[in-house]
Amino acid sequence: MAGFPVEELAAQASFEETAYLLWHDALPDARQLAGFREELAALRPLSRITTDILRAAATERAPAMDALRAAVGTSGLRATGGVSTADEFYDDALALLARFLTIVASYRRLLDGEEPVAPDPTLGHAANYLYMLDGEPPGVGAARALETYLNTVADHGMNASTFFAARVIVSTRSDVVSAVVGAVGALKGPLHGGAPGPALDMVFEIGAAERAENYLREKLERGVRLMGFGHRVYKVRDPRAEVLAQAAERLYETEGDDALYELARRVEKKSVELLAEYKPGRNLQTNVEFYTTLLLHGLRLPSNLFTPTFAVGRVAGWTAHCMEQRAPDRLIHPQSAYTGARTRPWVPLEERQRRRNQQIGVVT
Amino acid sequence: MAGFPVEELAAQASFEETAYLLWHDALPDARQLAGFREELAALRPLSRITTDILRAAATERAPAMDALRAAVGTSGLRATGGVSTADEFYDDALALLARFLTIVASYRRLLDGEEPVAPDPTLGHAANYLYMLDGEPPGVGAARALETYLNTVADHGMNASTFFAARVIVSTRSDVVSAVVGAVGALKGPLHGGAPGPALDMVFEIGAAERAENYLREKLERGVRLMGFGHRVYKVRDPRAEVLAQAAERLYETEGDDALYELARRVEKKSVELLAEYKPGRNLQTNVEFYTTLLLHGLRLPSNLFTPTFAVGRVAGWTAHCMEQRAPDRLIHPQSAYTGARTRPWVPLEERQRRRNQQIGVVT
Repeated sequence: MAGFPVEELAAQASFEETAYLLWHDALPDARQLAGFREELAALRPLSRITTDILRAAATERAPAMDALRAAVGTSGLRATGGVSTADEFYDDALALLARFLTIVASYRRLLDGEEPVAPDPTLGHAANYLYMLDGEPPGVGAARALETYLNTVADHGMNASTFFAARVIVSTRSDVVSAVVGAVGALKGPLHGGAPGPALDMVFEIGAAERAENYLREKLERGVRLMGFGHRVYKVRDPRAEVLAQAAERLYETEGDDALYELARRVEKKSVELLAEYKPGRNLQTNVEFYTTLLLHGLRLPSNLFTPTFAVGRVAGWTAHCMEQRAPDRLIHPQSAYTGARTRPWVPLEERQRRRNQQIGVVT
Repeated sequence: MAGFPVEELAAQASFEETAYLLWHDALPDARQLAGFREELAALRPLSRITTDILRAAATERAPAMDALRAAVGTSGLRATGGVSTADEFYDDALALLARFLTIVASYRRLLDGEEPVAPDPTLGHAANYLYMLDGEPPGVGAARALETYLNTVADHGMNASTFFAARVIVSTRSDVVSAVVGAVGALKGPLHGGAPGPALDMVFEIGAAERAENYLREKLERGVRLMGFGHRVYKVRDPRAEVLAQAAERLYETEGDDALYELARRVEKKSVELLAEYKPGRNLQTNVEFYTTLLLHGLRLPSNLFTPTFAVGRVAGWTAHCMEQRAPDRLIHPQSAYTGARTRPWVPLEERQRRRNQQIGVVT
């Protein structure tokens, strides 16, 4: 991701660092990160009309993605000359990045008949999301697990939402809010892909480890595809799978439902074993969706928040693509290839700051 | 348009007939048209939350296209299983078609500090738009002129808003509201094209016919492009230009500002004459934008409503493309070619109904 190995970046970066990296193509130093966190914190609360829309949507029991699309569309309403200036474009992008989580968490509470919880400016992005959902600050392990997930989905190149909706809308010199609303609209389509689906439903159906083998053999003999295994693109192991597997493991160790974790891993082991037996030579491994849903269930997110939570991460990538697209004379290349830096090692903030201080001659 | 010569269809069809044709690929008979008009009339009023958004946008003095995008996004909020059913898809498309004009007219009044005027179910689509803007039912000539304009812009094949935004969003099996919100977002970009621009500003600047020649020669000698002449696509005369020229002429005869019309036509004549002199062999003719703006000024629409009014017409085409895209197994062809009926003659409703009655053996 932006030249950093996703397994290094996702597991260690805060979501704010990842978003900053996508926007600026460089990790922030301590001052830049503090400024960015402060800007986001200031923009997280929703306007009155945005909350009104969420209340109206909750009354209709609209799906969370529809409520998100409608609520996001209230951003950036201001007097302009038609085309947003560079500053307005940046401000709108920042407000979108800051508010997706507030919108989703507020809507979830309204659907449950509860009042939204205002964001806490002292908490980071990931921790704020869990806080606004539950009304209580999350444990460090939960915030870290969510952060890792959001990092893995923050950007994934060109798909329908990023390319066709966001970049094409910006290419007419329209604004970033229009582009992101279009991207949300594309993401909600079930053929879009990317957002985690029902990979763990099989585990819930199996219910007990000793039932796994019979259940799986029966499916495989009927030729049913096992959700959570194999990948359309990655024929080898998806690099995000490992980092999510580790994040899930640590989450369940500290604050998750141990029994669910044990069951899931035993079903997984048995599935990979039986897939090798039934589909020899195909090398079907556990995919990223399996670990993603394991992690999200560990965070006690209801499954109807999976796609909106994906959007909470992906908005960083959408807005980054919009900024790049807005650069003048940028033509659209549908087969767009990554041409930025490659194989950059992840350097933690303290070490980055230490090196930077050395460079500029600060004695610490 | 759908196989009918645009000059026959646009000048004679009601906007409801044109929209029905785009949706069903056939002109309606009397019963079908009455049903369609009734459905639209019932859906024209706005929900409370849609009006609330418009009020919030007006407080911020947001441009009308931003207010339209935000307001349209409140459509279709309902409990669904995620993917809209065929009925929900149709209902949403109908509501969008019915409400664009109510949104734009209401917003215009709110910007002016006036309360919105509720739609009149006894008036047709075009007449309703002028009625909701002015608070008084329009003359027959004005309604007919607007109808002709809306017909000419109802569909124009694949451009950024139609193809990339609307069709791509639907291709993920997302809903028609998301697609149309994306299309509005693309249309508002100044590079989108299609919506009428400042073609008549030159006429206003010139102010008096006797100043035209000096003004135009001065521009042409400096190599300035004359807005309203020549066309990127049509090297011969755009077929829509003639029909709009005639509609504008009739409008000004009955209820427009005669002096403006006279001035515009004299500036036009002089421009074409001087373009032949300065750019010999280029055959630069008055284009559709010139006549469009002449017509819209004749309807006393303020120029900041030109693009939203274009959207009031184009939503018929967007929704038609969404319906076609939604058909199963429909792949996206960026070079999509029109494969429907060609060279169909326009048959007025009475004659259509008479023929239909003959076919089914009704004695009249």
